[in-house]
Amino acid sequence: MRVLLVAGSTRTAAVPGLSAAGADPDLRGHTPAADAEIVEYGQPVRSPVVPVSPSGCPTPAAVTRAVRETLGFDSTVVDGGLAEPTAAGTVTVGARPGGDIREDDPVPTAPGAYEAARQFGRKLPEDELLVAESVPGGTTTAMGVLRALGEPAAVSSSLPENPLKQKRAVVTEGLDASGLEPGGAANRPKRAVRRMGDPVLATAAGVARGALETDTAVTLAGGTQMLAVAALLRHDGVDRRLDLATTSYVAADDTADLAGVADTLDVDVTVTDPGFDGRDHAGMAPFAAGEAKEGVGMGGALALARRAGVPMSEVRTSFAEVYDRLLDASDDSG
Amino acid sequence: MRVLLVAGSTRTAAVPGLSAAGADPDLRGHTPAADAEIVEYGQPVRSPVVPVSPSGCPTPAAVTRAVRETLGFDSTVVDGGLAEPTAAGTVTVGARPGGDIREDDPVPTAPGAYEAARQFGRKLPEDELLVAESVPGGTTTAMGVLRALGEPAAVSSSLPENPLKQKRAVVTEGLDASGLEPGGAANRPKRAVRRMGDPVLATAAGVARGALETDTAVTLAGGTQMLAVAALLRHDGVDRRLDLATTSYVAADDTADLAGVADTLDVDVTVTDPGFDGRDHAGMAPFAAGEAKEGVGMGGALALARRAGVPMSEVRTSFAEVYDRLLDASDDSG
Repeated sequence: MRVLLVAGSTRTAAVPGLSAAGADPDLRGHTPAADAEIVEYGQPVRSPVVPVSPSGCPTPAAVTRAVRETLGFDSTVVDGGLAEPTAAGTVTVGARPGGDIREDDPVPTAPGAYEAARQFGRKLPEDELLVAESVPGGTTTAMGVLRALGEPAAVSSSLPENPLKQKRAVVTEGLDASGLEPGGAANRPKRAVRRMGDPVLATAAGVARGALETDTAVTLAGGTQMLAVAALLRHDGVDRRLDLATTSYVAADDTADLAGVADTLDVDVTVTDPGFDGRDHAGMAPFAAGEAKEGVGMGGALALARRAGVPMSEVRTSFAEVYDRLLDASDDSG
Repeated sequence: MRVLLVAGSTRTAAVPGLSAAGADPDLRGHTPAADAEIVEYGQPVRSPVVPVSPSGCPTPAAVTRAVRETLGFDSTVVDGGLAEPTAAGTVTVGARPGGDIREDDPVPTAPGAYEAARQFGRKLPEDELLVAESVPGGTTTAMGVLRALGEPAAVSSSLPENPLKQKRAVVTEGLDASGLEPGGAANRPKRAVRRMGDPVLATAAGVARGALETDTAVTLAGGTQMLAVAALLRHDGVDRRLDLATTSYVAADDTADLAGVADTLDVDVTVTDPGFDGRDHAGMAPFAAGEAKEGVGMGGALALARRAGVPMSEVRTSFAEVYDRLLDASDDSG
């Protein structure tokens, strides 16, 4: 079993109001690099920033790392278009940072990254893979891909109030710029992700496709962004069983309709609740209030812990330790 | 504790007769990439080759992986100038493949890689690091660095018969091309490694230096190449304790004088014997006959196993499993 974290960027995240990943917009470009470091080392290393939302919600990478410190798992970070250096080792598939989807060709590296990631996925010797993502602005590009494919495009948000109106406006503008009608890229997944997506979606879909081709069990570890990956796979002719593992926060997000979209795409969903509600903890309360919700494989990691019989209380204790370490690192860098 | 594997290349390896790392000279460039994959995944993934010497000696990466499968340890691969893609995640410090040391400026990226690696080493949160290498031709560049620094330059070899005469000729030609007398780069380690070394030596020395600066315990995991790293550190003014962990095969190599050079450089040496002598095993016999000897952290990994109380018999059993897997992979790719 191996967790593959695809980390990258899209300039779509710079549209004001779309993303809560990282407090300072100027530093948001470092979030995926820092997330990869937190999963790998337990704290930021090269990244000058600890990803925390404006209201103090830590990155969900802290939960994934907490599970790792409890359970242990192998992981590999795939460069899905990182805009900043990271101290985590990264596998290269040719993905470059994605542009704003309101441009006509924001992700020209998507088709190549999809194919290179597919070859990588084919060759991985693991029996089981969890594929996770870190890309600020990723729910908007997920919506873009779902709309381009003609699938239901109700996506979640890292913000407590989902800015769906802004997302829809950005996606509509993007479809116009790409000369696409909704559904205009149906059965053309590379076109959909190149014109309306981001390099992380392309890379994650490619690696999942390659792994599935060689009978590796794949769990898409994430929320509605990973549903967009599932949609890309379905529109590429993949008819195998697809599993998705996410958090209770995404499942409870009425603006997203995870269950409905998953049903449409024939995706089996596992939902895990870390039990953060009602805990008097500064790192847990924001999640309980609906921030962040998911990302960096949080829901998949929680599902791993549950499957291994690790009590959620143990995950929470580990999370509190990781959180304290991140606060210390934040003080050091501040 | 983390194992840092610095993997890279030097065109010096293309000089006929210098290196046994990889049977086919045309495929030797893939050896460090494959070594990184073997440590990370237990077998080659993207690499089209299983590193085996002309006489059938498997890469020492198989021993390091065997210890990993027995003991478990975290690892990170640093790109010290890889010439071929690898499926192992790699950290970038700006190192590019090294040229032949008979050129006047074979490693122009060495000073920058040294500094970037040093910053990376400074920021790593580990208490303890093992720094390992994979670079075919690396004992010749190690000799080049030791000669440029004016240190005793008796180096080991991956071949049973150390081609010292050829190495000395290449190094002499390199010193001439660089306008250096022996000792001409004393106290100028970046100059020594840029003109007479390889990007792996520069990167390994940089990361070790940075880690030592922040009170991380560093073990140089390797043979005479790692003595060249120690020499670079001493000539950069590092007066802290330096530890080196290597195999009984390097320690027993009379052509190399590990103990003497280590004494000159004030390096504490740990020697570990995997007990391959007298075993009727096709993967162990070549080591017992003096092939390969060390590399990819083999001696350091064996020392970790011993320290953890893992019996060498268990390491050998694990090695036999890894070896069989590599043979299967070799059949698949052949």
